[in-house]
Amino acid sequence: MAGRFINMKNLKFTLHELIDIHKTPNLDPFAGRNKKSIDLVLDAALEFSKKALYPIFELMDRNPPELKNGTVAVNPEVRNIMQTLGRDGWIAAPFPEEWGGEEMPASILHAVYFIFAAANYSASVYSGLTTGAAKLIFTYGSDYLKKTFLPSMRDGKWQGTMALTEPEAGSSLGDLVTSARPMQQDELSTDEPAGKIFLISGEKIFISAGDHDGVDNVVHLLLARIEGSPAGVKGISLFVVPKFRPENLMSPKNMNQAETSYQQSKEYTKMVGNDVTVTQTFHKLGYRGAPITALSFGDKGDCWGWLVGEPNKGLSYMFQMMNGARLEVGMGATSIASAAYEAALDYTKTRKQGRSLSGDKQNKRKNQPVPIIEHPDVKRMLLFQRSVWEGSLSLILQCSIYEDIVKSLSRDLMKNSSDLSEIELINIKDEKEKYHLLLELLTPVAKTFPSEMGILSTSQSLQCFGGYGYCEDFPVEQHFRDMRIHAIHEGTTGIQGMDILGRKVVMQDGKALKLFCHEVEKTVEKALSHKDLDSMAYEMRQALKTVTDTTQTLGIMAMQKGAEAFLANATLYLEMFGYVVIAWQWLSQSLMAVKKLSDNPDISIFNTDYSSSDTKKSDVINKSDRLFYEGKIMVCRYFFYHELPKIKHLEYTLTRDIPITISIQTDHFTS
Amino acid sequence: MAGRFINMKNLKFTLHELIDIHKTPNLDPFAGRNKKSIDLVLDAALEFSKKALYPIFELMDRNPPELKNGTVAVNPEVRNIMQTLGRDGWIAAPFPEEWGGEEMPASILHAVYFIFAAANYSASVYSGLTTGAAKLIFTYGSDYLKKTFLPSMRDGKWQGTMALTEPEAGSSLGDLVTSARPMQQDELSTDEPAGKIFLISGEKIFISAGDHDGVDNVVHLLLARIEGSPAGVKGISLFVVPKFRPENLMSPKNMNQAETSYQQSKEYTKMVGNDVTVTQTFHKLGYRGAPITALSFGDKGDCWGWLVGEPNKGLSYMFQMMNGARLEVGMGATSIASAAYEAALDYTKTRKQGRSLSGDKQNKRKNQPVPIIEHPDVKRMLLFQRSVWEGSLSLILQCSIYEDIVKSLSRDLMKNSSDLSEIELINIKDEKEKYHLLLELLTPVAKTFPSEMGILSTSQSLQCFGGYGYCEDFPVEQHFRDMRIHAIHEGTTGIQGMDILGRKVVMQDGKALKLFCHEVEKTVEKALSHKDLDSMAYEMRQALKTVTDTTQTLGIMAMQKGAEAFLANATLYLEMFGYVVIAWQWLSQSLMAVKKLSDNPDISIFNTDYSSSDTKKSDVINKSDRLFYEGKIMVCRYFFYHELPKIKHLEYTLTRDIPITISIQTDHFTS
Repeated sequence: MAGRFINMKNLKFTLHELIDIHKTPNLDPFAGRNKKSIDLVLDAALEFSKKALYPIFELMDRNPPELKNGTVAVNPEVRNIMQTLGRDGWIAAPFPEEWGGEEMPASILHAVYFIFAAANYSASVYSGLTTGAAKLIFTYGSDYLKKTFLPSMRDGKWQGTMALTEPEAGSSLGDLVTSARPMQQDELSTDEPAGKIFLISGEKIFISAGDHDGVDNVVHLLLARIEGSPAGVKGISLFVVPKFRPENLMSPKNMNQAETSYQQSKEYTKMVGNDVTVTQTFHKLGYRGAPITALSFGDKGDCWGWLVGEPNKGLSYMFQMMNGARLEVGMGATSIASAAYEAALDYTKTRKQGRSLSGDKQNKRKNQPVPIIEHPDVKRMLLFQRSVWEGSLSLILQCSIYEDIVKSLSRDLMKNSSDLSEIELINIKDEKEKYHLLLELLTPVAKTFPSEMGILSTSQSLQCFGGYGYCEDFPVEQHFRDMRIHAIHEGTTGIQGMDILGRKVVMQDGKALKLFCHEVEKTVEKALSHKDLDSMAYEMRQALKTVTDTTQTLGIMAMQKGAEAFLANATLYLEMFGYVVIAWQWLSQSLMAVKKLSDNPDISIFNTDYSSSDTKKSDVINKSDRLFYEGKIMVCRYFFYHELPKIKHLEYTLTRDIPITISIQTDHFTS
Repeated sequence: MAGRFINMKNLKFTLHELIDIHKTPNLDPFAGRNKKSIDLVLDAALEFSKKALYPIFELMDRNPPELKNGTVAVNPEVRNIMQTLGRDGWIAAPFPEEWGGEEMPASILHAVYFIFAAANYSASVYSGLTTGAAKLIFTYGSDYLKKTFLPSMRDGKWQGTMALTEPEAGSSLGDLVTSARPMQQDELSTDEPAGKIFLISGEKIFISAGDHDGVDNVVHLLLARIEGSPAGVKGISLFVVPKFRPENLMSPKNMNQAETSYQQSKEYTKMVGNDVTVTQTFHKLGYRGAPITALSFGDKGDCWGWLVGEPNKGLSYMFQMMNGARLEVGMGATSIASAAYEAALDYTKTRKQGRSLSGDKQNKRKNQPVPIIEHPDVKRMLLFQRSVWEGSLSLILQCSIYEDIVKSLSRDLMKNSSDLSEIELINIKDEKEKYHLLLELLTPVAKTFPSEMGILSTSQSLQCFGGYGYCEDFPVEQHFRDMRIHAIHEGTTGIQGMDILGRKVVMQDGKALKLFCHEVEKTVEKALSHKDLDSMAYEMRQALKTVTDTTQTLGIMAMQKGAEAFLANATLYLEMFGYVVIAWQWLSQSLMAVKKLSDNPDISIFNTDYSSSDTKKSDVINKSDRLFYEGKIMVCRYFFYHELPKIKHLEYTLTRDIPITISIQTDHFTS
């Protein structure tokens, strides 16, 4: 196992040239960062991944976590990985300096996740989940909660989780039944104030890293219903529920002392069990290096939970979290697709088989067997894979930049609002809303496109290996298995479809969709002026019109026939939207490639005989760069002529109003 | 595990009503068979599957074969299964009575395979491969070979294999290097005639059931190159190469004695090793219950192989075999998709989650959670699965009937040719050619559509379970893994694409395609006259035109630009063809359903409120039958409005002549 799992050149192209994080206006998280310092971060992440994550990629899969004596035993390297990621500041990276972080922007952070997850998806989730859970405490928790829980999470000594799903409720969070009863003063063994501490009782399933022996404690960010709260989503609150509660540190009075203690890391021995039981660790298709657990809270009536923020606002807190988590799921899928592609590329360029049809036509056998990458059918499979993962990567980093901009503008508003004129204030608010809406609209796409297309993409990686792809001798069968979770966790594809069509597209009278169209139109305008891109720009404009026309038709359907008819094929609407969004990303990539290539005005990209490659063109940019940019434009063309046309049949199905998925009844399936 | 894995009602509908094997003209294999006797066969197959195959479906996966002391150890039940299938006549079913068979037609045999493979795909291949290998010996082998090898294969005591693939050659059979040197008289330890026995030397990989301890011997039908033969596919010969050669039975003089011995099953102890070594058993993504092996022949220079038929004709013999094998691969994929669908159906109709959007709109929470099958998105996933596997099943059985007709007409010609007038003779020959050509044309579709769409179909089965689908607690994750082999073995999808476009469509000036169009047009004509089907009939006609237009455009491309341009997107052509073929099958199914429903002239299928189901319509046909036939028409509509439209983007890509998969070069991928 010494293979490549990411293309660093492509990642840096996407960050520095395509998204160009440096030119983003007024983005204070980037103050003090430059290309060089960002590259150092990426290179360090790659170094760590090669050394610590990739070597145990297969091992973690072959020896999945097992429940032993009430604890889940994981690969012993997990402890080292968590502690190294803690010590070197990766877990705390997005936090402010006072919490050990460096306020790393989401765009850089997600690029780092990309590298980690491509090396070993299972190994990457432990720290990612911890950062995510810590963010929730950091954003909504009291000082008390922050000081009690964040330091050990930051250091990789305590695992963080998100505990949402319940056996009966599943995707329907409004139905969750885990309960929280406020403790009375006389029930508290120490002098915590009543009203913030609750007794938790209930069951959660599918909790990633819900328990394991690679850490000393597990901190669940758990959704539960406070007794007497409203039914449905409006009665859900958020709690911190640790596996062990550190008994001597629970009192607010001791807070200063507490922090000292944590920093000295001496007080762990004084923890007591918090009545959280692991009832199962699931055996899974893939993603086997990370334990997915079923947990029982409060079997003995002694499970303490600390309320985060206000009662009944848990779901809105969690949703802010979940949006980030959904981008990360998209990135996880993208990473796996990247690793599978790199394996396929390596194999197809070395494996010789079959003859070229473009050689001696009279006697095929005179031609020598060629590396299979030279067969058009294999090139097509590789083009497809690239179009999926490179397109997804740039979309997710684009979304991450939106996230960074929103955060930065929010801070500007808070810091400077008194110094700003009313017009400046309105402008900043408008900008902030714009990027917020774009992020909201594109998040279900950034989650779903790589997750769904990644199933097909890793399947094509596998196919490139022929029979070997089906065997454990090569890593692709594992990538194929690891990939399949992403269309399920953090909201299934069906849920994402309802989200984009039922919420994101309709919110604020379709404002997000209008903003998106405006962004695409800007790209189209630029591309129209270049002879190598103008036909694709035209296709892009048509595709955008297909989406808006379809949306309009569905809107009329909603008015005439109601919500069920409107949303019946929401998954297909999301699929269509995905093709258009990724086409936009590819057109942007091509624009940048053309710009880079046009440093040499003699280059005409598609009138070139690529087979005689060592040309004079290399005067201006070096040969490898030229091939890289040419390749980008070619993958873009692939996407526009092989993938984007799929919106046509989706439009057909979405607008025909043949409500077959509503009218067929259960009896028709069971008779 | 007490789930259903097939829908027997649907299978019987397909055989008796749709394909209607009883009305097939002059089909002597069906003489003496009627609906009742065929149903007895199917019911017996189901009984055996439930009792012997399904209960070890998971067990065989969790404890895959291991190479121990030179032999592959498999689940101990394999021996019982093989011997029962031998004893009860399943392995020999297609053979004539003198060989223990009953000349079971391919259509019935494939229906039986469907049942076995749906219960446990891995367990079903041992006997299927044995039948296949025995067929080759039966068809092309000498009496000597038949008498020596068939009885023990028939009885399930010896395993049969097809040993084609080599480590370096893979799909490119013309490059195989396994060699065969004719033995000289003085090298023979017994008095066999020289010239028919060869010394084999070489390596084969990915040999299914290539070795295991569930049988006493393994009989490889192996392709090798006799020394001095031409290079490429024209120099390949077929050999019988057993793992053990029964020393005392090798002499033709002893043949009568030999057969007696076999029948008494006493002579097995007198076998000697034939220098065949298992070097590896592959650990695979799925299909884990069957060993896939790498074998080395003649390491010690003592591996004997018996030539089958004439030298250098091995590939043509094998191809005849492979066509059947390709139908069986398609059937295997169909079976797995069926089993996954049945699991998903069972889950979705019992699992409650979420509310219906068609209930109380003001207050969703007033509605009770519903079984998830009531959500349109779930119905869509189930419709997709049904459209794939029920459509594939009827196509493969349709092809099987073509096979039966060809075989029957061949026999008529041989038996009666002297009694027939010249015109009768020509008619029979024409008929035979017609069905032969249809079978040739449709075989790559029947292999590939279920194999490729089955990946998506089992993936959707898995999705129906949400998080549970990803876990070993339910069988779907295994179905998803088991499915993935089918697009690879017996010729990858890429190979099938080249086969249909590069050979089948162009052969005899496109005669096969013309015949196919004629068959479809007949179905269209009938459907046009029914008001519930006429719009689909119209779509069908358009779709057929899309295929023929695309074929024409590609033909022009072939003339102008050569073979590479013509075949570059052959896989996409096959994909398009698949949608059209399956649409035709669905239109046929709908026609039959309409016919059954129209026994009651009052039924108007699409003006019915299906939600109030207990109607007066049940006067004529019972309610369950009515729902079954209505369901058929609805799945057909699903296929026509959700799946068939996909040919539009394929046409776009195939005819645009943007040769991106040819022009991109290896350097563009690696720079």
